[in-house]
Amino acid sequence: MGGVVACAAYADGRRVREVALEDISEVLQQPEQFVWIGLLEPSEELLRVVQREFSLHDLAIEDAHRAHQRPKLEQYDGALFVVLHTVQINAQVQQLEFGETHLFVGQRYVISVRHGASTSYTQVRARCEATSHLLAKGPGFVLYALMDFIVDQYFPAVDLFESRLEAIEEQIFHEGVGRDTTEQIYDLKRELLHLKRAVSPLIDVANRLMRSDLALIPVDAHPYFRDIYDHVVRVNEMVDILRELLTSALEANLSLISVRQNEAMKRLAGWAAIIGVPTMIAGVYGMNFKFMPELDWRWGYPAVMSGMAAISGYLYIRFKRSGWL
Amino acid sequence: MGGVVACAAYADGRRVREVALEDISEVLQQPEQFVWIGLLEPSEELLRVVQREFSLHDLAIEDAHRAHQRPKLEQYDGALFVVLHTVQINAQVQQLEFGETHLFVGQRYVISVRHGASTSYTQVRARCEATSHLLAKGPGFVLYALMDFIVDQYFPAVDLFESRLEAIEEQIFHEGVGRDTTEQIYDLKRELLHLKRAVSPLIDVANRLMRSDLALIPVDAHPYFRDIYDHVVRVNEMVDILRELLTSALEANLSLISVRQNEAMKRLAGWAAIIGVPTMIAGVYGMNFKFMPELDWRWGYPAVMSGMAAISGYLYIRFKRSGWL
Amino acid sequence: MGGVVACAAYADGRRVREVALEDISEVLQQPEQFVWIGLLEPSEELLRVVQREFSLHDLAIEDAHRAHQRPKLEQYDGALFVVLHTVQINAQVQQLEFGETHLFVGQRYVISVRHGASTSYTQVRARCEATSHLLAKGPGFVLYALMDFIVDQYFPAVDLFESRLEAIEEQIFHEGVGRDTTEQIYDLKRELLHLKRAVSPLIDVANRLMRSDLALIPVDAHPYFRDIYDHVVRVNEMVDILRELLTSALEANLSLISVRQNEAMKRLAGWAAIIGVPTMIAGVYGMNFKFMPELDWRWGYPAVMSGMAAISGYLYIRFKRSGWL
Amino acid sequence: MGGVVACAAYADGRRVREVALEDISEVLQQPEQFVWIGLLEPSEELLRVVQREFSLHDLAIEDAHRAHQRPKLEQYDGALFVVLHTVQINAQVQQLEFGETHLFVGQRYVISVRHGASTSYTQVRARCEATSHLLAKGPGFVLYALMDFIVDQYFPAVDLFESRLEAIEEQIFHEGVGRDTTEQIYDLKRELLHLKRAVSPLIDVANRLMRSDLALIPVDAHPYFRDIYDHVVRVNEMVDILRELLTSALEANLSLISVRQNEAMKRLAGWAAIIGVPTMIAGVYGMNFKFMPELDWRWGYPAVMSGMAAISGYLYIRFKRSGWL
Amino acid sequence: MGGVVACAAYADGRRVREVALEDISEVLQQPEQFVWIGLLEPSEELLRVVQREFSLHDLAIEDAHRAHQRPKLEQYDGALFVVLHTVQINAQVQQLEFGETHLFVGQRYVISVRHGASTSYTQVRARCEATSHLLAKGPGFVLYALMDFIVDQYFPAVDLFESRLEAIEEQIFHEGVGRDTTEQIYDLKRELLHLKRAVSPLIDVANRLMRSDLALIPVDAHPYFRDIYDHVVRVNEMVDILRELLTSALEANLSLISVRQNEAMKRLAGWAAIIGVPTMIAGVYGMNFKFMPELDWRWGYPAVMSGMAAISGYLYIRFKRSGWL
Repeated sequence: MGGVVACAAYADGRRVREVALEDISEVLQQPEQFVWIGLLEPSEELLRVVQREFSLHDLAIEDAHRAHQRPKLEQYDGALFVVLHTVQINAQVQQLEFGETHLFVGQRYVISVRHGASTSYTQVRARCEATSHLLAKGPGFVLYALMDFIVDQYFPAVDLFESRLEAIEEQIFHEGVGRDTTEQIYDLKRELLHLKRAVSPLIDVANRLMRSDLALIPVDAHPYFRDIYDHVVRVNEMVDILRELLTSALEANLSLISVRQNEAMKRLAGWAAIIGVPTMIAGVYGMNFKFMPELDWRWGYPAVMSGMAAISGYLYIRFKRSGWL
Repeated sequence: MGGVVACAAYADGRRVREVALEDISEVLQQPEQFVWIGLLEPSEELLRVVQREFSLHDLAIEDAHRAHQRPKLEQYDGALFVVLHTVQINAQVQQLEFGETHLFVGQRYVISVRHGASTSYTQVRARCEATSHLLAKGPGFVLYALMDFIVDQYFPAVDLFESRLEAIEEQIFHEGVGRDTTEQIYDLKRELLHLKRAVSPLIDVANRLMRSDLALIPVDAHPYFRDIYDHVVRVNEMVDILRELLTSALEANLSLISVRQNEAMKRLAGWAAIIGVPTMIAGVYGMNFKFMPELDWRWGYPAVMSGMAAISGYLYIRFKRSGWL
Repeated sequence: MGGVVACAAYADGRRVREVALEDISEVLQQPEQFVWIGLLEPSEELLRVVQREFSLHDLAIEDAHRAHQRPKLEQYDGALFVVLHTVQINAQVQQLEFGETHLFVGQRYVISVRHGASTSYTQVRARCEATSHLLAKGPGFVLYALMDFIVDQYFPAVDLFESRLEAIEEQIFHEGVGRDTTEQIYDLKRELLHLKRAVSPLIDVANRLMRSDLALIPVDAHPYFRDIYDHVVRVNEMVDILRELLTSALEANLSLISVRQNEAMKRLAGWAAIIGVPTMIAGVYGMNFKFMPELDWRWGYPAVMSGMAAISGYLYIRFKRSGWL
Repeated sequence: MGGVVACAAYADGRRVREVALEDISEVLQQPEQFVWIGLLEPSEELLRVVQREFSLHDLAIEDAHRAHQRPKLEQYDGALFVVLHTVQINAQVQQLEFGETHLFVGQRYVISVRHGASTSYTQVRARCEATSHLLAKGPGFVLYALMDFIVDQYFPAVDLFESRLEAIEEQIFHEGVGRDTTEQIYDLKRELLHLKRAVSPLIDVANRLMRSDLALIPVDAHPYFRDIYDHVVRVNEMVDILRELLTSALEANLSLISVRQNEAMKRLAGWAAIIGVPTMIAGVYGMNFKFMPELDWRWGYPAVMSGMAAISGYLYIRFKRSGWL
Repeated sequence: MGGVVACAAYADGRRVREVALEDISEVLQQPEQFVWIGLLEPSEELLRVVQREFSLHDLAIEDAHRAHQRPKLEQYDGALFVVLHTVQINAQVQQLEFGETHLFVGQRYVISVRHGASTSYTQVRARCEATSHLLAKGPGFVLYALMDFIVDQYFPAVDLFESRLEAIEEQIFHEGVGRDTTEQIYDLKRELLHLKRAVSPLIDVANRLMRSDLALIPVDAHPYFRDIYDHVVRVNEMVDILRELLTSALEANLSLISVRQNEAMKRLAGWAAIIGVPTMIAGVYGMNFKFMPELDWRWGYPAVMSGMAAISGYLYIRFKRSGWL
């Protein structure tokens, strides 16, 4: 059936066999086994089949179908429904792509539903099967493994943001500031808010998983969810720091634009003076008065020219010294 | 009676019959039925009639009459009084219009009172009647259906805001910035605050409905109110993100105005120099000294003209390279 | 005695008789009666008399004498002490005036002490006497009536602020921006903070009155205090929105000042070019070279003048198109 | 012994006698007496003596010796250790000076340790001895009297800040803005943060003293600590309002600098045009063309001069009207 | 074994003997002894050895190996795992260097794992051994001693930041503002956020250690952890004040840049007028009209020159007075 990526039964931490969706009821009759199903953008019919098989709640199935949910943890009579946002770096354009994963976790099953950009969870499955003493703890551990995998993807995203911020700082403080810098800061802020929206509700989700006495999460699994909690808090903190730095960068940018404008203004003023004074003097000696004795002097012209040069030179040195040029 | 949009009795999830306001007491004698009344900007007398019929609290009736309440949930001996703000997009001017709906919910009745801009709730009624297994749960489910309908109207409003923000970003970063951009940012912020005021108190309302043990809300209806809670939290979050982006947009706008001013200043300075230097030179040769040998040279004029052109050309190239022109 | 505005005994929701301050002890011997005293800026002696009569706490009396308290609710063995800030619009200068009212509420008495700008509470008294079924509930209801009256005064104050903000917006976006706008924004913010200080502590006061099981507040009075709570929260919310809009207005103002500066700079640059180029050309033909063939041409002068006009015209059109002029 | 300002034994609210530090153990044998010791920047040895006498905790003694603590309230087996920051206005330079007072309060003793700028507590002692019915309540009341005295010093400090802010507002809106204004705003903010740091932790301290059932604070003293709590909250609120106003003042300042810059720019442009146009015209008639008929006209010169004056006059009036000059 | 800095057994507050890692199991058989091991960037194998010896939790060992954890306190069946960030001033470049220390504390052992920049804990060990009555309290006291040592390193870091802020203030208000100032403010903010990240989670850690009834922390050690709590809160508060001051400094900087720009603009305008007016006059007398009577006057030239000088002088004085020059 299209949309089913993998479907297998597990017992004692080991994969027992691949199961077809129709044969799940057989598996569920064997009390020591549980099923782990991976779905990719499933059709509504497929979801209805799954719903009937495990008697999942209507609203959770609707959520899983429509996607666009906030990250959250909900409990429907003994079953957990977890929504997570996945983050991936598109290597070509160096931008983030977001996706959504919905997890249904019951006493005897784990179902993952992927939407949008996200890597396959086959490597999570492989890793779980490799640590069978942990996998033997049941669906609660699979939930941990999937969440851990998803949360670990946030770190390279934050790293990407940090390197982009560094590039922006370099532009602001060492290269010329153009219009681009402002736009880059704005874009980075916009994407950070997107990431923040994926991460911050997870703090509460992880916190509830590491504390509450949900029957599905054995007590010795709490430290594992506390580990996820720590990671999420750390990512969230890094995002907050990046936001605060971006705000400061925008302000620093504005300051430096003003500093540069100031410098341009001073240069303009300096050169205007250096050009303006000789022009004024030349204008004086261009007057047509009959009686202007200097005009008849033999050395009048060279004297005036030297005078002009001297004044301009003096102004140039003075402006240079006071930092205006 | 004017102001009554619809009034019907329901039993077992099915509409039993239309009821006139005067005959409600009959309905209330049949314990398995409940009444659902829809009022539109009712007169005070009409409200007093309704109050007497269901013995509603004075203060709630006053609120429902005067409108201009904050969204809230109040409990008066077993009856719930819910105030919601409705949002509608006026398609012609692409602006939001706000209204208010007040709901009285008791064991045997639901009364909705609409004020200002809001669509009729006939389609909610139709949808409820179409899912009679849910409607059979009684007034609590009708409350859910009405709230769900109202909250769903917030999403297109947020979408409208997002597309308006995108238009503003386009203006800021790619078109020229004029006075309009600033005004548009300000107006958008003002309207966002209006929407925020409609949405954020709902978080608390939905939270209380999904948790508390109000007799009117059966336990198996809690997931439905949790769904509303999720939607409200999501809208609220999107509004907050929009506000933060608007603040950044205003700052980015200010930065880019400064960048452009800087560029204009540099251009002014550049052209002033290119024009100023030849003017100065021309002034020099316009002096009336008797002894200015260049004036008598055969090629003096073309030489000076070439010199001027050379200097201006040099300045032009230099300014061009350093990005001043 | 100076400072006593009114003093009457009530029983069963009806005014029994006017009482002189000295005769209060008689009233207090009749268990079904309570006294309602209104004081206006009382002298310390008067307050001491009242204190002795009702055995009020020293600290509360000191507060009531010195005024300048924050809005608060305190409980001294069974008696309540409430401090409220009153707000009034001075119609002549359209500015707010603030006052303070202190209320002592006991099982058998209500005492109001007014300081500073505040309207008389005679109309509250009249309104209470008109609804004797409510007044029969005793001092708790009088407390409600006084608080309701005071809180209702905040709404016109907020309306005044809103209309002043609108005037400022009009100035910013449609009239020229002068120094005044900035000062008006600052003044409005300052007054808003003053109003905020009067309103926000009331949220807590009203909340405690509508919830806690104070012996003085009968349970069926809780909805009335919840009504006050709603009003206070609404005023507080409106004040917060006004503050946020003022902050945005200040920023928008700054942006538009920069936009206008930019426009002035571009105009300056444009006209400088339009004047500068002909000046340069005229300078060239003012040079005194012997051999300048154009000078001898018959049509040299008109040709140069036309050339100047053409260049200036070209520059004018170009600047006009690019929006610099 | 150096460092001991006063040391007396009290019983029944009356001073029994002066005690030397060595004789304290005698006093402590009489169960109805308590000791009140005032220390000023005591040496470590002195503190060790006191510690041994009353068996105080090591860490509290270290704190009291080194000072530089945050305001706090700590409990060491039945004894209270309170740290308070004192504020004083240096009348000469109109600036604040900060100090620290550490209080040890036990069942039978009160010890105050002063560091840095602070007035002597002799007048507190005098005031306590004057109200012996309160002093009879024991060390808890002395604690109140000292805290009340210290908190009352904060009000003149806030008043000083308010008058400095008013001076700054006057500068911003009515006098010219110079570099000083910005520096004054910054300095005021810095000092406000200092005051805030002294005041805000006290809210928690006062709150705990007015609520908790510390054996040392008799229940009937709670209203007194609630009074201190009110004062601290009020000071804290005033400091917050001052901070917010200072932030607005800085922004208003920046706006007005820009407005003034705009005005200067417009003036510059206006005068440049008024001077530039006649210069251009004069340049035209300074050209040396052979055939310039105007040059030979009898009234050419006066006509051109009038034309120049007319244009300049026209420009002047136009700029004046549009507010550029 | 490489990576082991020190490893000793303690009993009754005294060092019993150095222990090789392999002999630890012997020590653990003697119930009155505990081991204190110091590790420096240990290899994974070493950590595995330690893990087996004390049966530590997998996740804690992974954390200790990979480092890059947030400061935190975790409890794994009776054992505590504490992560702390260390701060050191690199004296040469006057910059902060950060490191991480992980502590495992059990009933019978303390293990410290150092990563990155941090001083050795040999002096802590020495100090502990010097106060054997405290060391006799066991591993809980060693935890205190290590935390106290680490937290004390934060104070010089904050002092360094304060002196750097003072240097920046000096630059802003008294020296010329250049591009560097902005970059320095930004860098300082960035580093402050780094320090904040090390300090603020410690508040919660210290709070839990001083309150909760962890079996490892004897009740009489609580005041010691409260001392650490006070220090951490104080550092955190100082960091927050520094951040707020930096924000104000950035704004003050921007204001002063604008003030300076304003001054430059006014100077430019002033000198432009002083040079422009004589140029205009000279242009007038450079016109070639036949009939310009002034040109033929004997004193025409000196009169015009005096007039120019007078006008320029008048302008100079006027601009000087109004503060433009």
